[in-house]
Amino acid sequence: MSKSIGIIGAGIGGLHLALYLQQHGIDATVITDRAPDDVASGRLMNTVAHHSVTIAREDALGVNHWDDPSIVYHHHDHFFNMPDGPLLFRGAFKNPSRAVDYRLYLPKLMEDFSDRGGRIEYRSIQDNDVPALVARFDLLVVSTGKGPLGRLFQHRSEHTPYSQPQRLLCVGLWDGVDHGGPDKPDPRGVTLSVSPGHGEMIVIPTLTAEGMKTALLMENVPGGDMADLVSLNHDADPAAFRQTILDRLEQHHPHTYDRIDTQRFAVAGQQDLLQGGIVPTVRQTAASFDDGKFAIALGDVHSVVDPLMGQGANMASYAAFELGQAIVEAVVFDARFCEVVDQRREDRVLAASRWTNLMLQPPSEAMGRLIFTMSQNRELCDAFTENFNYPERQWDHLASEKRTHAWIDSHMAQAA
Amino acid sequence: MSKSIGIIGAGIGGLHLALYLQQHGIDATVITDRAPDDVASGRLMNTVAHHSVTIAREDALGVNHWDDPSIVYHHHDHFFNMPDGPLLFRGAFKNPSRAVDYRLYLPKLMEDFSDRGGRIEYRSIQDNDVPALVARFDLLVVSTGKGPLGRLFQHRSEHTPYSQPQRLLCVGLWDGVDHGGPDKPDPRGVTLSVSPGHGEMIVIPTLTAEGMKTALLMENVPGGDMADLVSLNHDADPAAFRQTILDRLEQHHPHTYDRIDTQRFAVAGQQDLLQGGIVPTVRQTAASFDDGKFAIALGDVHSVVDPLMGQGANMASYAAFELGQAIVEAVVFDARFCEVVDQRREDRVLAASRWTNLMLQPPSEAMGRLIFTMSQNRELCDAFTENFNYPERQWDHLASEKRTHAWIDSHMAQAA
Repeated sequence: MSKSIGIIGAGIGGLHLALYLQQHGIDATVITDRAPDDVASGRLMNTVAHHSVTIAREDALGVNHWDDPSIVYHHHDHFFNMPDGPLLFRGAFKNPSRAVDYRLYLPKLMEDFSDRGGRIEYRSIQDNDVPALVARFDLLVVSTGKGPLGRLFQHRSEHTPYSQPQRLLCVGLWDGVDHGGPDKPDPRGVTLSVSPGHGEMIVIPTLTAEGMKTALLMENVPGGDMADLVSLNHDADPAAFRQTILDRLEQHHPHTYDRIDTQRFAVAGQQDLLQGGIVPTVRQTAASFDDGKFAIALGDVHSVVDPLMGQGANMASYAAFELGQAIVEAVVFDARFCEVVDQRREDRVLAASRWTNLMLQPPSEAMGRLIFTMSQNRELCDAFTENFNYPERQWDHLASEKRTHAWIDSHMAQAA
Repeated sequence: MSKSIGIIGAGIGGLHLALYLQQHGIDATVITDRAPDDVASGRLMNTVAHHSVTIAREDALGVNHWDDPSIVYHHHDHFFNMPDGPLLFRGAFKNPSRAVDYRLYLPKLMEDFSDRGGRIEYRSIQDNDVPALVARFDLLVVSTGKGPLGRLFQHRSEHTPYSQPQRLLCVGLWDGVDHGGPDKPDPRGVTLSVSPGHGEMIVIPTLTAEGMKTALLMENVPGGDMADLVSLNHDADPAAFRQTILDRLEQHHPHTYDRIDTQRFAVAGQQDLLQGGIVPTVRQTAASFDDGKFAIALGDVHSVVDPLMGQGANMASYAAFELGQAIVEAVVFDARFCEVVDQRREDRVLAASRWTNLMLQPPSEAMGRLIFTMSQNRELCDAFTENFNYPERQWDHLASEKRTHAWIDSHMAQAA
């Protein structure tokens, strides 16, 4: 059968799919409105960590250009800024994770795809372009929510009832924050810092065009002490911005504040800040068109999550491989094909959404016990950390309070 | 964790699950209103063939008491009573199938379960018994739709929009119908005979307490020539009943009529007739109760299909094993557990329902081409036949006309 695949969007989902199909001899065309140079020279897009399962997919695609042990990180430090004294504990990955600025990452993968003979068309898509795109390809994959395309896929409110962002984001790349490293006493790690009632901050060692920087990804609770950072204007008064951040970190995320060299502390570059919020949304896998053709949603269009658990990009890459394999095996692109795609990827993708959304809630009694027990039981915390690779396994432990207690109990029995 | 499982119903689903759990050291109690002797001496319950995947599960459970090559069957003969001349062709299984009267089969499996220390309670369940059953067990499995129990599980009308039977059944065990055999020129086989517009008849060699008989399973179209057989009274006038059946077979299913020894042709025994109809219905996998407990639907309660494709019992056994494995692995019986059970079994169970319901419709152009091509291409018909073991694979070929054409095309390309 003819398999001409149109992929709209050149994020990690679209590019991993394009490279996968190319590797399997299937005709794929990527359509994006941003040329590699525009991406490379543009504003910070996100602060994304790739877990080892995603790095393994990069190896499989032959696009692991950052296979450098000096830039990876090995663990999560959990810090809770509790009123009755801080809680600090560590969990390690079996294999390291890695964050590379997408302004490096995506242009390089676009270049790989092009160098291997892939076709990328640079243009934006308007409402009235959709019918021609549907007609042109055997299957359309939508991996950007820009313009009219996200609206093609129905919202599944049974999974994500939200109409507002659950957190107000203030995200930036910074100089002057110690995150460990091969030349430091402590190996490189991510810190997950929680200020109860006010929000979370993820501190991520990140490779950028200017070398290693530190991403401070603040997920602030609307109405909390940090909420105003979402609209604090950096460019109007960089010094005031910097001082405000320092003051808030000192109060709410003191473990990270203590690792800041206040002399050097500054936003790394002019375009290295991102403020806003996302509405956690799961959408239908597929949309159908009058001529019997289908479009498949991939990545954020399918399920967008707060970046709290570092799942968005990893899910997009995972889903790209599942979709790619289904396309390779397909005999027909029909409703059954869409259903099979859904079956293959849904459990992990939904688990990432459910787990992330659970962690945005005030902790249940079981979650409180999990946190406390992890602080005492390194194996349990290592298991929790490793499951950032496998959100469906994490969900198997967090889907109900009973499950969480059973998980804790089994680890305590082992320890005893 | 405590795993005390209550199984209501002692059909193949309930018994295969009970035996599976027993084999894996999990406490299971079967509750049924019919003692083995009542089943053995009662009316014909159904005419069920076990395909080789189900026989393999019987081997795994150590309950394959009918491992006798002289009673199995090896192929399907397809007969179409077309106005412009009959169509007759054969498809073979890789491994044979077998039909054993459930009045032999079920009591023997109940005996196996009891002999191995299993607990069977004989009583009927009323509405007001449900809360006590829920409280008594860690998980309730409902594998009978009798009484109030089927209503626990919501109908999924998106899969089965039917409110009436799609066929009127007249089912019996007969003497005097040749179905082949080791002592015959032709090996033993099932015939699937279609009289377009009037219905289907499945002719199944069946082991009974009185030796080999032939099941004539008539699925008659409401309003068609055979519809009245659903209420034709045998006992009022056995000779007239017999003659009416003969006359209708001669007209609508002549391939089978030609294999009848009219001298010997008679209903095998007084209780060997079953008339009625079923409404194809898919229900939710699970029901939840106030105390956080759940009940799981198994077998016909979960999905009941017309017996046209011989899927009901095979699906119940398949689902029993999937559920059994999930129970063995479970740490908690919660909503996530029910979801995992659903994920594991849903594709095959739904495929059996969809495929069967599709075959009840007038054939599409693609289905017509499939039938004609199978009559010319033995490999294609063998593949169709083997897929009675794997309804999800059948559905992969039948879910859309495009798929069916693609399947035919691939077999024609191989043949050329």
